[in-house]
Amino acid sequence: MQRVTVAYPNKADAKFDFDYYMKKHIPFVAGLVGKSIEVGRGISSATGSPAAFVCVAAIPIDSVANFQAMFSKHGAEILADIPNYTNIEPIIQFDEILA
Amino acid sequence: MQRVTVAYPNKADAKFDFDYYMKKHIPFVAGLVGKSIEVGRGISSATGSPAAFVCVAAIPIDSVANFQAMFSKHGAEILADIPNYTNIEPIIQFDEILA
Repeated sequence: MQRVTVAYPNKADAKFDFDYYMKKHIPFVAGLVGKSIEVGRGISSATGSPAAFVCVAAIPIDSVANFQAMFSKHGAEILADIPNYTNIEPIIQFDEILA
Repeated sequence: MQRVTVAYPNKADAKFDFDYYMKKHIPFVAGLVGKSIEVGRGISSATGSPAAFVCVAAIPIDSVANFQAMFSKHGAEILADIPNYTNIEPIIQFDEILA
């Protein structure tokens, strides 16, 4: 099992519209991958300072190849939706789920 | 529901012993929190370059307060185990799980 991790690093002028994100963006991407996406909204760092990431989302995928095939069709539309909810450039990576 | 996200940023001289981590560290922490921990090993970035994070782990928790109570007892032991598997200083934060 693999996943895509999407992390939105905090910054001084960070904006993130969780209402739009949860009502529009996440259902749109979840529909394309056919999986539930786990979304975490950063509360704080371990020491109480602001969280390093405003948001960290995990998208379960069957394989990197399948995700890339979906992304080659719909990636432009997915990326074009990001400015509708945030001014943060996300870090996106593929992970192998070990446990 | 909340979680603790632990992300290990990649760096030039990064070392990470997944064997030790999965056999010793994760079972140790999972036992302390009484939850299964999801561990992702970074494969690559979305564009094929090295993954930004060598590892991203998600620890489900009942509440930040409960986790902090556990950490006040066992945190020193948990932190002291980190050099046994990596030379990366992890980013640790609390997240509210929205979905």
